[in-house]
Amino acid sequence: MSQKLGLCLIGANGAVSTTVMAGVALMRKGLAPRRGMITETRFAAGADLASLDQMVFGGWDLREDNAYEAAMSHQVLPIHLLNFVKDELSAFKPWKATASKRFLHSMAGKNILQLGSMREEIAKISQDIADFKAAHNLDRVVMVNLTSTEKYCEVSDVHRTLAAFEKGLDSNDERISPAMKYLYAALDSNTPYVNFTPSLSNVPALLEMSLKKQVPVAGEDGKTGQTLLKTAVAPVLALRDLHVEGWYSANILGNNDGLVLNDPESNKTKVTSKQRVLDSILGYQVEDHQVHIHYYKPRGDAKESWDNIDIAGFLGERMQIKVNFLCKDSILAAPLVLDLARLMDLAKRQGRSGIQEQLSLFFKAPYHAAGKEPEHNLFKQGEMLRAWLQA
Amino acid sequence: MSQKLGLCLIGANGAVSTTVMAGVALMRKGLAPRRGMITETRFAAGADLASLDQMVFGGWDLREDNAYEAAMSHQVLPIHLLNFVKDELSAFKPWKATASKRFLHSMAGKNILQLGSMREEIAKISQDIADFKAAHNLDRVVMVNLTSTEKYCEVSDVHRTLAAFEKGLDSNDERISPAMKYLYAALDSNTPYVNFTPSLSNVPALLEMSLKKQVPVAGEDGKTGQTLLKTAVAPVLALRDLHVEGWYSANILGNNDGLVLNDPESNKTKVTSKQRVLDSILGYQVEDHQVHIHYYKPRGDAKESWDNIDIAGFLGERMQIKVNFLCKDSILAAPLVLDLARLMDLAKRQGRSGIQEQLSLFFKAPYHAAGKEPEHNLFKQGEMLRAWLQA
Amino acid sequence: MSQKLGLCLIGANGAVSTTVMAGVALMRKGLAPRRGMITETRFAAGADLASLDQMVFGGWDLREDNAYEAAMSHQVLPIHLLNFVKDELSAFKPWKATASKRFLHSMAGKNILQLGSMREEIAKISQDIADFKAAHNLDRVVMVNLTSTEKYCEVSDVHRTLAAFEKGLDSNDERISPAMKYLYAALDSNTPYVNFTPSLSNVPALLEMSLKKQVPVAGEDGKTGQTLLKTAVAPVLALRDLHVEGWYSANILGNNDGLVLNDPESNKTKVTSKQRVLDSILGYQVEDHQVHIHYYKPRGDAKESWDNIDIAGFLGERMQIKVNFLCKDSILAAPLVLDLARLMDLAKRQGRSGIQEQLSLFFKAPYHAAGKEPEHNLFKQGEMLRAWLQA
Amino acid sequence: MSQKLGLCLIGANGAVSTTVMAGVALMRKGLAPRRGMITETRFAAGADLASLDQMVFGGWDLREDNAYEAAMSHQVLPIHLLNFVKDELSAFKPWKATASKRFLHSMAGKNILQLGSMREEIAKISQDIADFKAAHNLDRVVMVNLTSTEKYCEVSDVHRTLAAFEKGLDSNDERISPAMKYLYAALDSNTPYVNFTPSLSNVPALLEMSLKKQVPVAGEDGKTGQTLLKTAVAPVLALRDLHVEGWYSANILGNNDGLVLNDPESNKTKVTSKQRVLDSILGYQVEDHQVHIHYYKPRGDAKESWDNIDIAGFLGERMQIKVNFLCKDSILAAPLVLDLARLMDLAKRQGRSGIQEQLSLFFKAPYHAAGKEPEHNLFKQGEMLRAWLQA
Repeated sequence: MSQKLGLCLIGANGAVSTTVMAGVALMRKGLAPRRGMITETRFAAGADLASLDQMVFGGWDLREDNAYEAAMSHQVLPIHLLNFVKDELSAFKPWKATASKRFLHSMAGKNILQLGSMREEIAKISQDIADFKAAHNLDRVVMVNLTSTEKYCEVSDVHRTLAAFEKGLDSNDERISPAMKYLYAALDSNTPYVNFTPSLSNVPALLEMSLKKQVPVAGEDGKTGQTLLKTAVAPVLALRDLHVEGWYSANILGNNDGLVLNDPESNKTKVTSKQRVLDSILGYQVEDHQVHIHYYKPRGDAKESWDNIDIAGFLGERMQIKVNFLCKDSILAAPLVLDLARLMDLAKRQGRSGIQEQLSLFFKAPYHAAGKEPEHNLFKQGEMLRAWLQA
Repeated sequence: MSQKLGLCLIGANGAVSTTVMAGVALMRKGLAPRRGMITETRFAAGADLASLDQMVFGGWDLREDNAYEAAMSHQVLPIHLLNFVKDELSAFKPWKATASKRFLHSMAGKNILQLGSMREEIAKISQDIADFKAAHNLDRVVMVNLTSTEKYCEVSDVHRTLAAFEKGLDSNDERISPAMKYLYAALDSNTPYVNFTPSLSNVPALLEMSLKKQVPVAGEDGKTGQTLLKTAVAPVLALRDLHVEGWYSANILGNNDGLVLNDPESNKTKVTSKQRVLDSILGYQVEDHQVHIHYYKPRGDAKESWDNIDIAGFLGERMQIKVNFLCKDSILAAPLVLDLARLMDLAKRQGRSGIQEQLSLFFKAPYHAAGKEPEHNLFKQGEMLRAWLQA
Repeated sequence: MSQKLGLCLIGANGAVSTTVMAGVALMRKGLAPRRGMITETRFAAGADLASLDQMVFGGWDLREDNAYEAAMSHQVLPIHLLNFVKDELSAFKPWKATASKRFLHSMAGKNILQLGSMREEIAKISQDIADFKAAHNLDRVVMVNLTSTEKYCEVSDVHRTLAAFEKGLDSNDERISPAMKYLYAALDSNTPYVNFTPSLSNVPALLEMSLKKQVPVAGEDGKTGQTLLKTAVAPVLALRDLHVEGWYSANILGNNDGLVLNDPESNKTKVTSKQRVLDSILGYQVEDHQVHIHYYKPRGDAKESWDNIDIAGFLGERMQIKVNFLCKDSILAAPLVLDLARLMDLAKRQGRSGIQEQLSLFFKAPYHAAGKEPEHNLFKQGEMLRAWLQA
Repeated sequence: MSQKLGLCLIGANGAVSTTVMAGVALMRKGLAPRRGMITETRFAAGADLASLDQMVFGGWDLREDNAYEAAMSHQVLPIHLLNFVKDELSAFKPWKATASKRFLHSMAGKNILQLGSMREEIAKISQDIADFKAAHNLDRVVMVNLTSTEKYCEVSDVHRTLAAFEKGLDSNDERISPAMKYLYAALDSNTPYVNFTPSLSNVPALLEMSLKKQVPVAGEDGKTGQTLLKTAVAPVLALRDLHVEGWYSANILGNNDGLVLNDPESNKTKVTSKQRVLDSILGYQVEDHQVHIHYYKPRGDAKESWDNIDIAGFLGERMQIKVNFLCKDSILAAPLVLDLARLMDLAKRQGRSGIQEQLSLFFKAPYHAAGKEPEHNLFKQGEMLRAWLQA
């Protein structure tokens, strides 16, 4: 099998994407350890995965600067590290992106695709993918959504069947979001798709299409910091029958992702995604589970979470657990993007299509079959992945 | 099967023991919820366990007051709750305990067994068990060690074979600790034994005896607070390849257990027990893993732990997790004692003997076969227990 | 001077009021230490203050149960302590209270004054005070507002002059809040008034009246937990030129006060009060100062605050301070109420009227002369109080 | 007055010293803000202070590398900042230092003064100062002790009078520490001296000498992180009569300073210095005040403190305050060194000699007249400094 894999990133100049690109360049040069990726551990030993050393990047972004300028502005990696890969990053310029004021309040950037219809936009996205493959002589490509969180949106009739969706495209139905257009283009281009954001994209119409086109999809919302720990601590409490009376989660972050979440509608999309995980692990509904996300400027990309868990133990006596995670948003996300790209490529080569439940480990709100409860317990998710990789 | 089970507690007037006794009395009266015990959840549904409602208590202690007076002094449960079961607790008076200045620095209490030889002490302990069975018409009894942590002690020749040990008893060898004498008496009385403390008791000589006498044993050192969370958080970090550069654990507690741990030799026993868990879960040796335990008077039984975990993720970038557990030592321990007593009784009825590895979940330093690494991962331990219960 | 002082509490069955009453009764009986009150320390030694032993309580509340029932429901003090003063508390029944849906969303309780006009309501409140004095043979009374936070409200024309206000009363102007009616009645009855809440009451019209009637007033919003620490930590940072780049304050509490603050309009009143303190101490505007208050049920009266302070020091290098206060709302507030009542009584006897700036120490948003910045620095506030007491 | 001031740093290649030197160079070039120094704020406006722009550095160290190499190894400042001042730092090479195994366990480095007698060592130190003045044409010099903490040592007869001390020097009395030799040389060279460490140096003999030679001295142990906050929080608790039942302070740090503190005798020196502050502020002895310092490698210079304060308020009810300071040891210390150098230079020009109590603000254990309690309250210390500067 050829090792060469292309990644098409939606939001290619964002903090996560530029960290992914800088990281791959640094690791190739031996200037940073290969850490934080499951696909680089014995967990994935023996799996036939694309090599980091031959990965190629493309992608869309509303910003028109190059990836070096973007990475410097995000302040994720130390300046002296970025300077080691200045040439590689400077050479990267994103393609024009599709966007919609209806779904994103604060649309900074001018690198916007301005075409007359949704059909034309999708055609252009597909053409970008085809050109990318040709330019780099690539057989295989994976698309990853890494843009800002879109406003809250619910599934409506236009999203329910592929036929309705296609008709919606024809009439430029404004309930079709940018995230859905990218996914449609991916499926149409036979390209596996990962939704690393909480934006709604995998609606029934497109799931139908993924099965029909035999393309694997995975999502949604990367499980990076607070939720990662939550899905590890909750199983302990279940195991010991320590009853959760309340779980209060606060998050502060100051990057662009945080700024977008200041918009109440985008915030709602995110909080909804973060709140689902607890009850299914515990087996009962927590009476007071709160998740708050606040944009807090001094932090930049260095996100912090503060969790307070009120538990009642033997005889109903009360105790508290507090978990404080001082993390780096993009540093936690970037390796998962690389893992997912490689694993989705593997899934595609195995002929899998539709939802890839074995990748639930990576997501806050794992895609799951209709009518089925997704698995949130981190350790059970780990077993699912292990079983697939060892099969 | 008769539901009636007797518990013989070593350290019967301590904070954990009196909480166990008060708790059973309160639950029987419906004045407190049946919470915090695995044996009361669906996890153990279907297992043929002794009932809480017919449990009977006996035990040894250096203190000579009754259990109500002891419980009031420990300040674990609110006064108004203790008063609901004042009669039951007041009726409990402990048997005289065996003790040794060599193994315990601060021996408060006068309720001491003063006999001429180790053999006589053991005979008296066995007699206490026999009398207890007769008085309450009990078929089955379990012994649980809940005393203060003994001073640090290593296995030496007298502990290595049953023959050497018996010879040691004959010559009153001072390397034989009180904990070992109780265990010997338990095995001799065909009584399952649980070591809930980190004190050394299950030496090779007595493991040999447990197999010979066909009695099950389990230990050691109940996994209650900080270590419980540690064995849940560490697997997440392993799963995500977040490298642990250091793990700093501080503990403050102000109960009698804490006071004993102010003695450097007892502290060493405890810290050694707490430090083992990390490396085997992570698969590498953590370069700087520290555990500190400090007696801090204002807290009483309300133990607090503060953990700081330094991790290196993608590209070696550093992040921190801080876990702060405001817990209640005896409230966490008491339900495990009840779980263990019921499960050990089940194991005995199943004809099991020697180390019960399926109970590793309950311990900081699980007993394990010689030459084998014990399982520390909380979730794997949970699976081991589930498998046994469902078999 | 007679030692006998009457306290008229608005919100007399609330958590703070019942803790004040239970506390005075417990201290009188010698069942609890006289702690937490400045007026009981050497700080106030020599000041001619009314005695705790002869204090008498009256007050209004929407709840009609007695103070023992109310105190049991608030769960501030342990049950066994409350039972020591059950008789005293059971004997207390509040007077009917005035209330307004416009100013308070969640009006629980039926003990409501239902009269035809504002003038009649005020007359009834004044009559309650007069009857209280007569019944207990009191010369001196102080009124303290301890009700729930009213909705956010700004000063408008009806509040600007006493003449306009009086005309507003005549026409039942709905911009006149319950808090203002109580204050009007207090001034009319020659009774010193303390606003321990953030509700707007000391409008220019009533300040004019307090000077005319020669009655002292003090407020607003008792400085109890998070803000207390904030006004102590901020001066350190100013002194060391550690620049505050951001200060994020979260609060969780589960008592009735917290429930009221779930109403966005009441929340706004409170947050506005809490946010003022920082900039004046530091001497510059903090770019990102956030205060969040969330009702979190499991906590009851045991409020918790979590503050994160981002500072830039030498060469602009960044550091963080986190302050976590696990406090008890009413336990912090109750002693300040007693301090304020005694000090306002002293001020009245000294012939002082209008705003009592020397009591700024006790408030989050100290009343201050128009056009003047209030003093927020806790230590300078302490010096102001000391200077007055020693004069 | 000439603006040119020389600083002689003991431990010139340490983390604090190199941060001082790098900082001054960066500020001069306008590459870093002038922050964190009292002497750069309005607090010191009008005081006739030496300029940062004409400061010159000299000093002694056991390491023989240059200051750039040393700074890179300490990892206090980001690499790209250090590179801006690489030339200035590379040009600095420390003089040979005096040292003693008796007072410092881990003496890394070979740049050691090896002479036959204490008198010769002192003569060499004095000569270094004289040469430094001549080389840079300096009128005024200040010496600052910034070395590692020496082992615990108590005042004995040789330290009590100048006569005894001189005799001790003649006989090479091993109770005379390196810190004392530097101080002796400073006084002998008419050079103001600051002890920024907890090492014992200002013994009665040398205080006698400072008065006789009319040289000002100040110390000891810079008040940087945990203790700084402690002396701000404790006054609040005193003011509100919140009784401190216990105060548990843990510190983790991974720099060379921390490594030295792993030696129990050096640790004792430091802990003793940190423990004094609390009782004098509160006015009573805290029953359980603990200070723990642990070397924790992953942190490097990024020190962290965790304080837990147990308080009893109204009616004896208990609450907790936790303060977590994520700071940078050298970033907090360096600006104080610059403040102290400039203020001591001012004191010298004013003709002051002996202990400079007005600088207590800067120290954990302020030097104070015999028989007098030092002032620890941060805000009172601030007033003392302000009064002096404004006089």
